[in-house]
Amino acid sequence: MSTVNSAGDAGLDPRVKAVFDDIRATRGTDFINNFWRYLAFDPALLESTWAEVNRVMATPSGLDPLTKEMIYIAVSVANGCGYCVHSHTGAARAKGMTAAQHAELLTIVGLAAKTNHLVTALQVPVDAVFDQDAAPRS
Amino acid sequence: MSTVNSAGDAGLDPRVKAVFDDIRATRGTDFINNFWRYLAFDPALLESTWAEVNRVMATPSGLDPLTKEMIYIAVSVANGCGYCVHSHTGAARAKGMTAAQHAELLTIVGLAAKTNHLVTALQVPVDAVFDQDAAPRS
Amino acid sequence: MSTVNSAGDAGLDPRVKAVFDDIRATRGTDFINNFWRYLAFDPALLESTWAEVNRVMATPSGLDPLTKEMIYIAVSVANGCGYCVHSHTGAARAKGMTAAQHAELLTIVGLAAKTNHLVTALQVPVDAVFDQDAAPRS
Amino acid sequence: MSTVNSAGDAGLDPRVKAVFDDIRATRGTDFINNFWRYLAFDPALLESTWAEVNRVMATPSGLDPLTKEMIYIAVSVANGCGYCVHSHTGAARAKGMTAAQHAELLTIVGLAAKTNHLVTALQVPVDAVFDQDAAPRS
Amino acid sequence: MSTVNSAGDAGLDPRVKAVFDDIRATRGTDFINNFWRYLAFDPALLESTWAEVNRVMATPSGLDPLTKEMIYIAVSVANGCGYCVHSHTGAARAKGMTAAQHAELLTIVGLAAKTNHLVTALQVPVDAVFDQDAAPRS
Amino acid sequence: MSTVNSAGDAGLDPRVKAVFDDIRATRGTDFINNFWRYLAFDPALLESTWAEVNRVMATPSGLDPLTKEMIYIAVSVANGCGYCVHSHTGAARAKGMTAAQHAELLTIVGLAAKTNHLVTALQVPVDAVFDQDAAPRS
Repeated sequence: MSTVNSAGDAGLDPRVKAVFDDIRATRGTDFINNFWRYLAFDPALLESTWAEVNRVMATPSGLDPLTKEMIYIAVSVANGCGYCVHSHTGAARAKGMTAAQHAELLTIVGLAAKTNHLVTALQVPVDAVFDQDAAPRS
Repeated sequence: MSTVNSAGDAGLDPRVKAVFDDIRATRGTDFINNFWRYLAFDPALLESTWAEVNRVMATPSGLDPLTKEMIYIAVSVANGCGYCVHSHTGAARAKGMTAAQHAELLTIVGLAAKTNHLVTALQVPVDAVFDQDAAPRS
Repeated sequence: MSTVNSAGDAGLDPRVKAVFDDIRATRGTDFINNFWRYLAFDPALLESTWAEVNRVMATPSGLDPLTKEMIYIAVSVANGCGYCVHSHTGAARAKGMTAAQHAELLTIVGLAAKTNHLVTALQVPVDAVFDQDAAPRS
Repeated sequence: MSTVNSAGDAGLDPRVKAVFDDIRATRGTDFINNFWRYLAFDPALLESTWAEVNRVMATPSGLDPLTKEMIYIAVSVANGCGYCVHSHTGAARAKGMTAAQHAELLTIVGLAAKTNHLVTALQVPVDAVFDQDAAPRS
Repeated sequence: MSTVNSAGDAGLDPRVKAVFDDIRATRGTDFINNFWRYLAFDPALLESTWAEVNRVMATPSGLDPLTKEMIYIAVSVANGCGYCVHSHTGAARAKGMTAAQHAELLTIVGLAAKTNHLVTALQVPVDAVFDQDAAPRS
Repeated sequence: MSTVNSAGDAGLDPRVKAVFDDIRATRGTDFINNFWRYLAFDPALLESTWAEVNRVMATPSGLDPLTKEMIYIAVSVANGCGYCVHSHTGAARAKGMTAAQHAELLTIVGLAAKTNHLVTALQVPVDAVFDQDAAPRS
């Protein structure tokens, strides 16, 4: 149950079709998950989101692909986005996440949530040593 | 400004002193950051939290220490915990996080937040392919 | 699947029946959506909530009805309330929200979420110019 | 640093003055905390909020006053509202919360945050037994 | 639909079986709810979580069991964890929560959410009187 | 107190200088608020964020500029981002938001937060009528 119609494969807006074609080519599979099919209700939002996801997540960089996916999962869990947790857990597995790494990711996420709440409840003041503006610039 | 008193170094409860001594020995520094000084208002909570943080974050495991810290930062940002963002950004730097990796971490966190909100706004249904219970068990 | 029973139309508590009658008269339809049927488990909470929603959302004021609904959707998305996103997207459409306005609303919500997370990750200090208490009072 | 001006004690709007007088009489103290002074930027919002807080928190009911304050703290921590954590921790102490009860409250809040995040990460399906709509009505 | 497989009752890892046996013995029922069945994907996480829940929630302490469950519900609502709201509402009922107490709990949760958002929107500065570090130590 | 250094006006990276020049030209003021000065720690993130903010918020579209700012404030409040609330409340005032409109915005935000939490606590099922996928496509 959703708030907009999803796009099928027929009768697509040319801009939507171009993005779908690029998703298929980039991923090497015909399957397009629901996020893109629903985002297609607005071609401009679909285009800009796909371009950003592709640039951030698929461009070789200083973080390896699996680490990126685990960071994505962590944010999605903390923001309570079920779909996002599902899709990025799937992506992390496809990039080699083992069951042990998954368990460790969740253990850290749970611990961070606990200490986040304790800090908020205690209203702990930030130690001066953590202030980067006070640090000597390199 | 906080909701409980912080503990100094004098006149400590023996259980608090034991944790502070262990923090200093484990980290090889005399400095104890505010989280532990405020958590000391309850020796049992201090003990159990330090034990858990130590076990999860400092035990060699399938994720390297820097990856763990970046996951911790990601959760803390999404949960809006300023102190936690400060302290774990400091910890990640101490474990070798470069400015480029920090920038990439934040880029992923910002992108994930955006797509999390889009998914929630669209109420995208989960694709059947992401259901692990439906997957063949190994 | 819910945590309380929903109210049907028969055998209602008189206070619940009075609110249901008022909802039907105000909206000019016999349909009563689930929020009110479940909130009916406590007549006092039903009465006070309906009175507040009616006063805030239906009283002519300095913001037009569609703008109000879009603000409501924005909060509901950020709070991760799926039901609320569904019901207020429906209400916004009934008040004239076009597909283009819906897309623009979501684009802003997604952008705000991204910059919210970046600000939290950077712990940006508030500029003095934004302090209203420091502004001259009119 | 705030987004609106706070109200002092001189030259007040009569509706604001009436609420301030009622706060002082109800609480038996001349002190008015900042929440009310800033909310005074809109007399209608000040009136309705004070009326609601008074009705919910100060009317004798099936939950004792201290339990109510601890629930309020729990929500405020989870929503990350520092001011609210401060003011309601103060209120809970004024109603008799001991240091041990405070520590236990925080221990539960931290544990709930941890399991909340684990459940979201696992996307645990709700057990049928928890469905109240399926339960026999009394 | 979940991100990991759930554990049935056959062919269990001995550590998982030991926890399941302890859950059954502690609760006096053969039923094991899904949280534990899914958490079983990692025996270490299952063991530590069950031990923590048991210690915090089931050990006699300065807060009565029902108050603890209502605090747990409050956090789960604010964190938007549907499963947690279901399971702890069930637990609270089992510990004697009446419909009137449930309604009052929700009334407080809703009010706290409202004032939390107002405080954040106004950016109310914390009153000096709430600073515990400035208070005389006992 | 922040997690990265802020950029002054001297010795800037050319890409940072170009964005700062564009911000000044676009807004017709020499003032650059802290968000951009801190985001400057990563020129690529600064460029892409400024481009997106400019495109979404400053391009004439189907929503008027003040409505856009109020939606931005609503998301920022619900996400608990103090800096964002300050800066976008300032921006909304600059675009003509009156005190009455500000009060009404906050009234809606507070009400939405309350009903969001009630819906989550009740776990209200979505009415079939809100399912857009079931609606006839235009």
